[in-house]
Amino acid sequence: MEFNWLLENKGLLLNGLFGLEKENVRVTPTGKLALTPHPACFGDKTANPFITTDFSESQIEMITPPLPSIPAACDFIETLHDIVTESIGDELLWPQSLPPTLPNSEEIPVAQYENADQELEEYRHHIGRIYGKERQLISGIHFNVSFSEAFFDEAVKQAKGAHTRAEIKELVYLKVMRNWMKHRWLYVWLFGETPIAKRGFQVQSLTTGEAQPMCCGASMSLRTSPLGYRNREAFFFDFSSLATYLSEVDALVEAGKLVATKELYLPIRIKCLPKDKGAPSYLEFRLIDLNPLEKNGISTHALYFVHMLMIYSLLETETAPFDAEAQLCANRRQDYISCFGRRASDSFPADLATQPTVAAEAEALILKMQSLLRPYGIWDNAIYQTEWNHLHTLVQTPEKRAGIAVFDGITAEGYIPFHLNLAKQYKQETLNEGYRFHGLEQLELSTQLLLKAALCRGVNFELLDTAENFVRLYTNSHEEYVVQATKTRLDNYVTILMMENKVVTKQLLHRAGIRVPLGNEYDTYEEALAAFDRYKGKATVIKPKSTNFGIGISILKENNSQADFETALEIALTHDRTVMLEPFIEGKEYRFWVLNDRVEGILHRVPANVTGDGKSAISDLIVRKNEDPLRGVGYRTPLEKIKQGREEALFLKQQGYDFDTVVPLNEIVYLRENSNISTGGDSIDFTDTMHPSYNILAQQAAQAMGAAITGVDMMISDISQPANDHNYAIIEMNFNPAIHIHCYPYKGKNRKLNYKLIEALGF
Amino acid sequence: MEFNWLLENKGLLLNGLFGLEKENVRVTPTGKLALTPHPACFGDKTANPFITTDFSESQIEMITPPLPSIPAACDFIETLHDIVTESIGDELLWPQSLPPTLPNSEEIPVAQYENADQELEEYRHHIGRIYGKERQLISGIHFNVSFSEAFFDEAVKQAKGAHTRAEIKELVYLKVMRNWMKHRWLYVWLFGETPIAKRGFQVQSLTTGEAQPMCCGASMSLRTSPLGYRNREAFFFDFSSLATYLSEVDALVEAGKLVATKELYLPIRIKCLPKDKGAPSYLEFRLIDLNPLEKNGISTHALYFVHMLMIYSLLETETAPFDAEAQLCANRRQDYISCFGRRASDSFPADLATQPTVAAEAEALILKMQSLLRPYGIWDNAIYQTEWNHLHTLVQTPEKRAGIAVFDGITAEGYIPFHLNLAKQYKQETLNEGYRFHGLEQLELSTQLLLKAALCRGVNFELLDTAENFVRLYTNSHEEYVVQATKTRLDNYVTILMMENKVVTKQLLHRAGIRVPLGNEYDTYEEALAAFDRYKGKATVIKPKSTNFGIGISILKENNSQADFETALEIALTHDRTVMLEPFIEGKEYRFWVLNDRVEGILHRVPANVTGDGKSAISDLIVRKNEDPLRGVGYRTPLEKIKQGREEALFLKQQGYDFDTVVPLNEIVYLRENSNISTGGDSIDFTDTMHPSYNILAQQAAQAMGAAITGVDMMISDISQPANDHNYAIIEMNFNPAIHIHCYPYKGKNRKLNYKLIEALGF
Repeated sequence: MEFNWLLENKGLLLNGLFGLEKENVRVTPTGKLALTPHPACFGDKTANPFITTDFSESQIEMITPPLPSIPAACDFIETLHDIVTESIGDELLWPQSLPPTLPNSEEIPVAQYENADQELEEYRHHIGRIYGKERQLISGIHFNVSFSEAFFDEAVKQAKGAHTRAEIKELVYLKVMRNWMKHRWLYVWLFGETPIAKRGFQVQSLTTGEAQPMCCGASMSLRTSPLGYRNREAFFFDFSSLATYLSEVDALVEAGKLVATKELYLPIRIKCLPKDKGAPSYLEFRLIDLNPLEKNGISTHALYFVHMLMIYSLLETETAPFDAEAQLCANRRQDYISCFGRRASDSFPADLATQPTVAAEAEALILKMQSLLRPYGIWDNAIYQTEWNHLHTLVQTPEKRAGIAVFDGITAEGYIPFHLNLAKQYKQETLNEGYRFHGLEQLELSTQLLLKAALCRGVNFELLDTAENFVRLYTNSHEEYVVQATKTRLDNYVTILMMENKVVTKQLLHRAGIRVPLGNEYDTYEEALAAFDRYKGKATVIKPKSTNFGIGISILKENNSQADFETALEIALTHDRTVMLEPFIEGKEYRFWVLNDRVEGILHRVPANVTGDGKSAISDLIVRKNEDPLRGVGYRTPLEKIKQGREEALFLKQQGYDFDTVVPLNEIVYLRENSNISTGGDSIDFTDTMHPSYNILAQQAAQAMGAAITGVDMMISDISQPANDHNYAIIEMNFNPAIHIHCYPYKGKNRKLNYKLIEALGF
Repeated sequence: MEFNWLLENKGLLLNGLFGLEKENVRVTPTGKLALTPHPACFGDKTANPFITTDFSESQIEMITPPLPSIPAACDFIETLHDIVTESIGDELLWPQSLPPTLPNSEEIPVAQYENADQELEEYRHHIGRIYGKERQLISGIHFNVSFSEAFFDEAVKQAKGAHTRAEIKELVYLKVMRNWMKHRWLYVWLFGETPIAKRGFQVQSLTTGEAQPMCCGASMSLRTSPLGYRNREAFFFDFSSLATYLSEVDALVEAGKLVATKELYLPIRIKCLPKDKGAPSYLEFRLIDLNPLEKNGISTHALYFVHMLMIYSLLETETAPFDAEAQLCANRRQDYISCFGRRASDSFPADLATQPTVAAEAEALILKMQSLLRPYGIWDNAIYQTEWNHLHTLVQTPEKRAGIAVFDGITAEGYIPFHLNLAKQYKQETLNEGYRFHGLEQLELSTQLLLKAALCRGVNFELLDTAENFVRLYTNSHEEYVVQATKTRLDNYVTILMMENKVVTKQLLHRAGIRVPLGNEYDTYEEALAAFDRYKGKATVIKPKSTNFGIGISILKENNSQADFETALEIALTHDRTVMLEPFIEGKEYRFWVLNDRVEGILHRVPANVTGDGKSAISDLIVRKNEDPLRGVGYRTPLEKIKQGREEALFLKQQGYDFDTVVPLNEIVYLRENSNISTGGDSIDFTDTMHPSYNILAQQAAQAMGAAITGVDMMISDISQPANDHNYAIIEMNFNPAIHIHCYPYKGKNRKLNYKLIEALGF
């Protein structure tokens, strides 16, 4: 099959779907294999499509869905990595493919399955006996890649009836598989990351069955070496058609050489999804070692190289059959690099070599790649151009390969400390930014958190309208639509309209025996202005009738100035055609987050502030406070950085301060009057310290409105005293109450509202 | 008790609550008593607080709740009158207190009750035997009036502990009752409306039990005369305290002179509601004849007089006790006026007269009223000032009294024809404006219709926020909140958001296998403009991503002008930050109104048009079409009047016409391109003619969105052909679909969606 038509359809080659599967073993804080069970929060291992176990109970496997780009797959796997990290207490994810400190073989726990899935456990015991549990603990990454359906649409068109779509898929993926296997030594040479195992780490010999140390002279990838993760004998196949290949695999199973087809550890697997009815759907690249230098275990460089070599393999003319001899040759090249690839000045054994050094072989291959791919427009894509340049640098300065840095690090710090430090560093990074869904930062934080909880519970999602935060959550048996995390099926429409309408909210709460600031509404500026005398001298709240989020609200504590009153009316009337005047209730405002009649979180917001230490200037205190990873700019984080702007300077000046003032130890200096998080305010959790009588009131308020999900804003004089007829008032009910502020408060515990929501939605 | 303090609290006297109870007998189109059962649509007679029966099964009683003004009570009773009128097929409501053509006594049906309420029926049989069924058929109006609680608040304050609130209520209402009874002859003289009965109408004598004709020399009110609706003997009471009065009534019942206290037919009843714990709550004025000259049976003049006389009665000093002698004297005055009041030049019998003529007596009393009330500020109220002037006119020109006009009308046309013509005229008025809830015209038509359906079914309502059309519907056992008639508890919030989001709507419908115009969305003007080439030459719809009601939508049928394309984009982008481009689907647009998976109405809208008659100018055709009572101005009616404005002139000009053009018979001339009802378009019902395959699609669409209430907008090529893969598309789902257009279409049946909604809400 010819691919000249791709010259005219640039871009078709690069598109496709990309998925990752990654294993990490769990370790204790001292680097020993964790012997605890797989965390219960991930649910049934066979039902969660994102987070499960591999061979060992301690070996977590994370799986992304097929995604439209390599960065999307990397972001998704990092998010899964974060979710797992947050769910394993003080345990860590071991960032190296080769194992940490292990107990005796018999104590290595095999993944446990229940009832109908019992045979999965038996299979693991079986392969544990054949290969040794230590070898099966070796972890890695599988990269699943397909060409786009648009590519095959065009291929079918170009074939003009000569081939069916299924035939074309077979031709394409088998050709890629053959050529990629041939050149795969270069992947190992560039991106092998398992140069040394822990001193004394032994694996069961695949031939004698006896324990043998896993070490080698100048190994680049022990995992993919003959000592690593592979079958007891090398198998050769007829890769000229899917049928011949598959029948040969079946024959091995029948002959008892393999327990099941999945025991065949080829560097590439060809995968067929039901939708393709027997034709190949994608390729699974399995040579990828965990990269300990990356938090998510993989560099995008490695994945782009896999993809580039895949495209090259499609376009490269095959000059000789990929028969058993050629396969053996390819295997020997890989083995040689796996075992000795660290020595860049080395050359292949004479019968394999075509150039004086391996580096020269590498250089020759990537130059061929460049000249073959350029006409197809691959280099018009800035990313691929940059990635090829990076490859070229690595080939020319092989000491820049990540595997070399890993080798150097282990040598300098020791195998366990080197990896343990990285693991701890990654854990801290995760905990600092746990609110983030990598790659979906354009979504609101509340939605990012909801989707993370969904993944943790094995619930799929689909973004229906990203700008609107409109998502679909689904499993095989259930689906839910959610907007902005808290707009759900659980609430009925008229309840939302009640909460949106402050007048109605107050009437209904008042009737339910709950205190509210009873005020008046005015439809015109003139009417409202005429009411000035009635409110004069009384602390008064002036607000638009129906907006959320505190927009357009003024509080006049004295209310003696008609001019201020007029300004406040004007502000309110820009947001609604009706303005409300209410008596101001003394006390502090608390947000009660209520779900299905339970208060799940209570928060108080404090205006932007710093606390004096008796020696630092206010500006330094601000800089220090802003170092908190929860603080950012532009609502991408749960808190905003405190600004040193005009408003802050003015507010300081009113207190007789400026940014250079040094304030005494423990004196709190406020930078703003308003307590909004958006202007640097602090969110402080009070869920455990609130007098329970207020929780009951918040629940009753939710019930009075028939609200499943609501944020009740309550003014309270003293949260240690029980509620009575004059010491509190509910001032607002919010139908779209943010969850992220309760999950990542400035002070206090993560109330995990995202998980509560997922459960309330029936997942 | 003194009321001087009211001089300083002007306004307290006028406020209060006002309620009406009105009976009308149902008659056939020829004026015979209808012998059909009470319409089933009103439900259980004992459970419907608004519409029930009185003595006879054919005698409908309509009851308003207490309302804050006399006009509000009149409007409400008119709405109940309309609801009843619309529910009795071709029967009519008899506008006269005295009966229509009656069958034999034994055929007059007594109101029927079932099971536990059987004793109500037995009571009716009992009083039918005592008073005669003919007398019990005499209908009238009761007017319930109270002073405001603010009045009593101030009275309690002024009493400075000398009286409790309950004592004050007793003092106030008993004084009013005594004085009002004394002066009540003037009410009858001014507003008596039963001057003549049907020739040959006989009532059972209260003394002999024999039938006697009901007629009298110069009667003003036969109903309140000794021949009318009263007890067999005159009872006198001690009205100085509630306790004495009530115990005397109880004694009459014990003595067997009355079957029950409700058999006591005094001109005023004092009523005690549970909330007042034994103290009086309001007075029921019972002297009021139906006014045949008013559709709703009552003129506001009469009610204002009752109220003014009530206030006068409170303030007037009592110079003598209202003992049996005084009561007899008051009765005799009333009886005299009832029997002879039509003769204005007449005088009372010598022992009752204080002036030469009754007219002079009337003049003296209303002048006293004026001088007593003026200092209390009653005359500062323009309405009361005007009403008093009207009274003065009637006193000075007694021939202007409505009762005289009724007498003259009956004399001229005959008793049955006179009243029957009025009944038919009122029925037509009702049918012309059936969409209207009198007094609540500030609500949207859909909400007015919903509230009418609620009343019909005996469901109470409360307006929580009139501007938002936010209402509460309730019975003793159930309540619902509704906004704009169709925003209810029945729909969940996320379904609303799905419908609001056109992109999500289309995705979900498309997945459900329903045809939608698959288009594209653009976030910037530039992106959208760049797509011009893709859409060039193809009929294209350009619209904002999420607005309802067709706002900001342009259809470019040719789409060859980039300038037009730009304009359309600009229009769309003023309504949303995202614009959508879609292929235009050929066909006509139909609105399917779906409730709980059933299509309840289908409508097609046609641009403003007239049909030629071969002789009239277009402007005359417009005037004639605009005479339809369904057409109005400013969205207060189901259709809008066609304008003769610039747009219409321009559109005519494009067709080579102007407003003076005479078009041939049956030629349809369009005045507008757009089909909006708001610019004079026609709404045409297709519920019964649509091919059922489209109904199934509309239902499936509602199901796909999980919508309980939705308006599905579908383009259909030919409604007589079944739906297939290319002849229809759903273009929009509306979460707040208007109901009034389906209830009052230009052509077609009333689909009674307001009643369907009330039922769906569980009432």
